[in-house]
Amino acid sequence: MTVTEPKPMHKLDPKLIVPFVNSVRLVMSTMTGLAVTVGASKIRTIPGAEFDYSGIIGFSGGIVGTVVVSFQKAAAVQIVEAFAKCPIEPDTADFADALGELTNMIAGAAKKEFGANASISIPTVVMGAGHVITRPSDVPCVSVPCSAAGASFAVELSIRKT
Amino acid sequence: MTVTEPKPMHKLDPKLIVPFVNSVRLVMSTMTGLAVTVGASKIRTIPGAEFDYSGIIGFSGGIVGTVVVSFQKAAAVQIVEAFAKCPIEPDTADFADALGELTNMIAGAAKKEFGANASISIPTVVMGAGHVITRPSDVPCVSVPCSAAGASFAVELSIRKT
Repeated sequence: MTVTEPKPMHKLDPKLIVPFVNSVRLVMSTMTGLAVTVGASKIRTIPGAEFDYSGIIGFSGGIVGTVVVSFQKAAAVQIVEAFAKCPIEPDTADFADALGELTNMIAGAAKKEFGANASISIPTVVMGAGHVITRPSDVPCVSVPCSAAGASFAVELSIRKT
Repeated sequence: MTVTEPKPMHKLDPKLIVPFVNSVRLVMSTMTGLAVTVGASKIRTIPGAEFDYSGIIGFSGGIVGTVVVSFQKAAAVQIVEAFAKCPIEPDTADFADALGELTNMIAGAAKKEFGANASISIPTVVMGAGHVITRPSDVPCVSVPCSAAGASFAVELSIRKT
């Protein structure tokens, strides 16, 4: 995948980032029991990092935009197994459902913390080794890098208050 | 990518499909000048067909759900070139922006035809050879197969009226 020069991005309100840092910690610790490290959030470059699995969820109402939770395969396999309490074959409907449900929980917990009158959509899950997800070049996006059991995942936020 | 047995799916209202058949014809003919063939819509299997580029857009309000426009690379390259009136290097931000804009136009034209008080989100674009996109197993999804210049793309609908 060719990575082109990042274009200049607008800022994203830091108050919109903290609820996701909290929700990813909460959901991962309560639902998988895995220790999660959350790194410093940073502006996403375009096209950006490659991942193997992504859960995508839309916000509408008081908060609008998209939240993407992207996993390297090693992270996805371990997180799904810890979540389901048994191994699940990658690239199956059950595997995608588990990642979609985790994405839904992370977005849902953050939504509660906002207290805004926002709705979240049904999750869409992308499965494909080394895929890249982009938003329009002029839309700000912040990536929150995370790791669990030595493997990487990231929560990518492209949202704003209305 | 392993393809597992399709799970039973609910039906999607045919009245929600026709506006997208019309909008894909309209947008492709006016914006790219390419002749587009639209096949019979069918229930999506899980995980489903592999594509190389996908534009994803969310609906909220009177219509809720997700619309995905997925392209094989040959189709994406030709459609983007016809849309931009010049070749654009695949896997760049400009290439993704063009596919996102086409997805936005297709969803926007269908939304107008619904006449419902619906909103559409900013498009998200997935770039990755042979990726598969899924929704939760119990959410109905209809695929409208299309082709342009001998290459395949598809409009996948997972929407309902509220």
